[in-house]
Amino acid sequence: MNDPADAGHRIELRSDNAAGAAPELLAAVAGANTGSALAYGGDEWTRRLEARASEVFERPGVRVFPVVSGTAANALSLSALCPPWGAVLCHESAHILRSECGASSMLGGGLQLRGLPGPDTKLTVDAVHAAFASTNWGDNHHAQPSVLSLTSPTDLGAIYQVDEVAELAAAARERGLRVHLDGARLANALVALGCSAAELTWRAGVDVVSLGALKNGGLSCDAIVCFDDAAAAELHYRTKRSGHVASKMRFQSAQLDAYLADGLWLRLAASANATMARLTAGLDRLGVELVVRPAVNMVFARLDGPTADALAAAGVDFYRMGPDTVRFVTSWQTTPEDIDAVLAVLERHRA
Amino acid sequence: MNDPADAGHRIELRSDNAAGAAPELLAAVAGANTGSALAYGGDEWTRRLEARASEVFERPGVRVFPVVSGTAANALSLSALCPPWGAVLCHESAHILRSECGASSMLGGGLQLRGLPGPDTKLTVDAVHAAFASTNWGDNHHAQPSVLSLTSPTDLGAIYQVDEVAELAAAARERGLRVHLDGARLANALVALGCSAAELTWRAGVDVVSLGALKNGGLSCDAIVCFDDAAAAELHYRTKRSGHVASKMRFQSAQLDAYLADGLWLRLAASANATMARLTAGLDRLGVELVVRPAVNMVFARLDGPTADALAAAGVDFYRMGPDTVRFVTSWQTTPEDIDAVLAVLERHRA
Amino acid sequence: MNDPADAGHRIELRSDNAAGAAPELLAAVAGANTGSALAYGGDEWTRRLEARASEVFERPGVRVFPVVSGTAANALSLSALCPPWGAVLCHESAHILRSECGASSMLGGGLQLRGLPGPDTKLTVDAVHAAFASTNWGDNHHAQPSVLSLTSPTDLGAIYQVDEVAELAAAARERGLRVHLDGARLANALVALGCSAAELTWRAGVDVVSLGALKNGGLSCDAIVCFDDAAAAELHYRTKRSGHVASKMRFQSAQLDAYLADGLWLRLAASANATMARLTAGLDRLGVELVVRPAVNMVFARLDGPTADALAAAGVDFYRMGPDTVRFVTSWQTTPEDIDAVLAVLERHRA
Amino acid sequence: MNDPADAGHRIELRSDNAAGAAPELLAAVAGANTGSALAYGGDEWTRRLEARASEVFERPGVRVFPVVSGTAANALSLSALCPPWGAVLCHESAHILRSECGASSMLGGGLQLRGLPGPDTKLTVDAVHAAFASTNWGDNHHAQPSVLSLTSPTDLGAIYQVDEVAELAAAARERGLRVHLDGARLANALVALGCSAAELTWRAGVDVVSLGALKNGGLSCDAIVCFDDAAAAELHYRTKRSGHVASKMRFQSAQLDAYLADGLWLRLAASANATMARLTAGLDRLGVELVVRPAVNMVFARLDGPTADALAAAGVDFYRMGPDTVRFVTSWQTTPEDIDAVLAVLERHRA
Repeated sequence: MNDPADAGHRIELRSDNAAGAAPELLAAVAGANTGSALAYGGDEWTRRLEARASEVFERPGVRVFPVVSGTAANALSLSALCPPWGAVLCHESAHILRSECGASSMLGGGLQLRGLPGPDTKLTVDAVHAAFASTNWGDNHHAQPSVLSLTSPTDLGAIYQVDEVAELAAAARERGLRVHLDGARLANALVALGCSAAELTWRAGVDVVSLGALKNGGLSCDAIVCFDDAAAAELHYRTKRSGHVASKMRFQSAQLDAYLADGLWLRLAASANATMARLTAGLDRLGVELVVRPAVNMVFARLDGPTADALAAAGVDFYRMGPDTVRFVTSWQTTPEDIDAVLAVLERHRA
Repeated sequence: MNDPADAGHRIELRSDNAAGAAPELLAAVAGANTGSALAYGGDEWTRRLEARASEVFERPGVRVFPVVSGTAANALSLSALCPPWGAVLCHESAHILRSECGASSMLGGGLQLRGLPGPDTKLTVDAVHAAFASTNWGDNHHAQPSVLSLTSPTDLGAIYQVDEVAELAAAARERGLRVHLDGARLANALVALGCSAAELTWRAGVDVVSLGALKNGGLSCDAIVCFDDAAAAELHYRTKRSGHVASKMRFQSAQLDAYLADGLWLRLAASANATMARLTAGLDRLGVELVVRPAVNMVFARLDGPTADALAAAGVDFYRMGPDTVRFVTSWQTTPEDIDAVLAVLERHRA
Repeated sequence: MNDPADAGHRIELRSDNAAGAAPELLAAVAGANTGSALAYGGDEWTRRLEARASEVFERPGVRVFPVVSGTAANALSLSALCPPWGAVLCHESAHILRSECGASSMLGGGLQLRGLPGPDTKLTVDAVHAAFASTNWGDNHHAQPSVLSLTSPTDLGAIYQVDEVAELAAAARERGLRVHLDGARLANALVALGCSAAELTWRAGVDVVSLGALKNGGLSCDAIVCFDDAAAAELHYRTKRSGHVASKMRFQSAQLDAYLADGLWLRLAASANATMARLTAGLDRLGVELVVRPAVNMVFARLDGPTADALAAAGVDFYRMGPDTVRFVTSWQTTPEDIDAVLAVLERHRA
Repeated sequence: MNDPADAGHRIELRSDNAAGAAPELLAAVAGANTGSALAYGGDEWTRRLEARASEVFERPGVRVFPVVSGTAANALSLSALCPPWGAVLCHESAHILRSECGASSMLGGGLQLRGLPGPDTKLTVDAVHAAFASTNWGDNHHAQPSVLSLTSPTDLGAIYQVDEVAELAAAARERGLRVHLDGARLANALVALGCSAAELTWRAGVDVVSLGALKNGGLSCDAIVCFDDAAAAELHYRTKRSGHVASKMRFQSAQLDAYLADGLWLRLAASANATMARLTAGLDRLGVELVVRPAVNMVFARLDGPTADALAAAGVDFYRMGPDTVRFVTSWQTTPEDIDAVLAVLERHRA
């Protein structure tokens, strides 16, 4: 068996946002290029998208704001949920805290992100209660906890169960906090849990979702999915004044509509999750230690330097997270053949 | 001759951003959907775009930041050029002042926009000098003029001559201001002037350009074109922290590259300008008064209510700016046949 | 008769904030320096101040936030009344627009100040209605009018009648705006109008007042006087997060309490208004033209350059507003003898 | 021996900002109330203050900005030192992070505060190096470390030695960071160290100091002491646009001048440190466990609930930090007799 590199081919396991766009989304964009349509959302595709989201999330009147990045979705959502003197409670590993250059503080007028500890990169009700207990409520020296932000899947690929979300949201609501879900890989979580979008979001107490599409076959946008009327009323203005209202919004809305239509988003995520399962089964067989057993499409595994070097030389792209740890992420585009090729390289090298 | 409406067809003269995307841009997006590419600009299309911009603007090292809207381009540019206690001088009709919901103040940390008067929606050196004369320089009670922002074409379709830009920029530089050009319809101005992109921008003293594509056949982005290293260094972070760095940036960069390649942007604009010229020639013939004679692809004309009603009923979409004033905007998609049909309706109604 | 300068004495007519502090306020500060008291407003002087304000403004539960400057009072008030995407309507000569370096935009998260025209530096209901008529309500391209801010006395010394405030506030409320009064010289207006503090403020529809003390014998603070519970709840946090909560607040509260106690603020203002009246009577007698007849303690008069030079040489400090215009401002410290001395100089020079 | 409460007297050990103002400062304010003086710092007291600071800090051209609170001093200093996309490294217990309601993020346009661990509430060079090592330099997903902020004394009363400051500052400068010192209790640290103000600040590499006066006999202001010209140029505007320029600044400047004159600030701090030493000597004698041995005027000690209750009942005010931990803070106003009375109560209760 040859290495992928021998065929001039590289296998992408760095990130799911390095993958291409699903052809259905490209086709939707092309399909929306018919005649003229009012700018800034005054078009039929945007109306259709909101109807689609209402259907998919099983709730009337869902508002959707297409935005150009997950960072925009998160920061705008939080700016609409949290007063500028408030604090957003999140896990200390959260993307909003670690990887968005302070976007939420910036768009949120100086709001604070407060990272809480928790095993497996997940928040616990105990950690939230501990944060509440250490808060001087009403004391203006201290940013007041106002929003609980969950990330699922987390940046290390863990997911919350539906009842975990519900319990965390209930704990938050007891003290008046609103609840945000960073769902940059929401479809992967839904597939892994086998639950509905409604169950994991508003039925569990979530007010606003950052709905990722880009890491799952998206083309040029993610979206804010908003179940809260007051937040939606703010987002109408907050999106514009931060430059996040697309002029030809039909091309964004059409993509997202296609993404949600006929379960495409779930099929794409199911494929990514499945190739990851194939990979981890193979790694298990080969005796490669997994740092965390993956719930979705991401795994951290122990590979010594020479093995990692050999894998890279053979044409596999991935990230090294330390001297003996690598991260593999599969995407909707990863094929079973890709996985088998990766495993074959590892097997040869180990032999 | 029949009305467009009889054929189930409507003619779009409301805005050039209601037009579709040029097929070359869609093809470029599809063409970029090959295999994997690093996110956030670490891809070959983004490198190619910067090389293309350097070539088109005839200057090495031009930096390009694709963004989702003209508002984002303007507000981010100004935030990188103006300190938060500074003032941006612009015409009192400027889009940044009138139509962006305070985005520049928001992303610029509270900077002030100071609208100056001027005939024909254009700034004059005299108005700039008058603003300087009324400024308490160094007095911290007053926002300090720090940037001159020109819009060309203006929101009423007027354009600055190259030497007008150069004189205004020189006046600004004399007092230490930097110069921004809101070029939401830059290509239309270039075509009308018959000058090069370099002549109208950095050679005339412009530091940063908001380069419009969306109103001229664009799909999902405009861009910041930056000739100033310090501003570019800030924009690297400012784009991210406001959520304006696209994940799969290759799909934005590929569009913009196609837009600038082989003069496509100029051909699209030339077509829009030409159909506008055909329209105004016809309006002249029919004795319709023009409020301003158009320099590019936009005209304001006097039409009484019944005539405007008849035109709308016949299948033409346009905006009414007052009881007897209408605005017509042509786009790259407007055809000579569209114009002839519009003129035919008017002629029949007048008869 | 000699010039003031002959006695080594200068007469201060530049600004009322160049005057000293009233001895009652210094005494109150000294009086508050007894033993310990909790910081940040947890002291009896602050409680007493709020009780005093409730009594003086004839309304239970008035909230008072001592702040270090009128700019802080204005900007914080507006930040609590106006959403960050909103616009504050004010006169085009307003201090908040012209002389505070964009503080309201900064503390208000990018809110816009929209200057309206109006005779005599005052807003009119017509101007407000015109602003409303030119607003695209609900359109997110445009900052939404959210607050009407009146300044009385204006920066040129004009005052609104009680019914003018009431009519403007009613016009504002009709469209959902809240009402702010910049009362940097509120006491001077009250004395001139002969009305109560309640009549000119909340009874006329004002929600929040920037209560000036510094220009009227104050020592180290002005205050926000808040009749609106929602705004007060925000100010609790907004003051702290902008660094505007004094640690030893008792020394600020004690001043303000003394200022409002037993009509001191009105007596100080009455004295300043009276010396101004004495001055203008004298200027009339001498045939000096007044640009505006003063309502309070400020006048703009025509003095040719040589006369102004002579006055300055004789020991009078004042501001020149142009080649033949001067501004005189009296304060609580200005004496009738000061005025007579000024008039004597002018008379001698004219003779 | 009687309890303080028997004499209607309470002993204040809650906080040094609950103490009164030193009489010298009150006298200075009264002394500045002579005649008129230009507002906003255009007065002789402010000039004198800057000369005084230059002398005390042994460096020409020191700039001083009086502000109304330590929070204002910190947040404004950091906003002038750190770009809005930057991160300020500080100890995880730092006041700027824990007790200022996000003021630095707010005035700093969304900058991030990054808390680092360290024993004894102090930063170490190792922790700073670890923070650097975990930073993705130049990566716009991550707030870039731009300022190192030290607090000395810390909020738990620990102090940095001069060479510790110098080493930390050197480590920071190596990566281009600037250095801020939160000196809310700077005088207490100087007295404890026996070093000069210059040695602990700019000679050790500090660019800007938040100079506390309020906790050490101050009346109504702290100050920013700035050794960096670029930061000072920004602070000129940043103070104004956040409402932090006092109108009658002479009354703030006169206080601070008196505070720094003739070593008053050091004498006041020496007294507070000495009464704390007397207290801890007594606690040692009584066998009361100290959580941390105090370097300055603050101690955390173990007292069981009944003992604490008895102490409170006897007329001593202090804070309880947990079920068996109390905090005692002495101030310039605390007397040896106060301490002896406290110890007598404890001794009687223990007996």
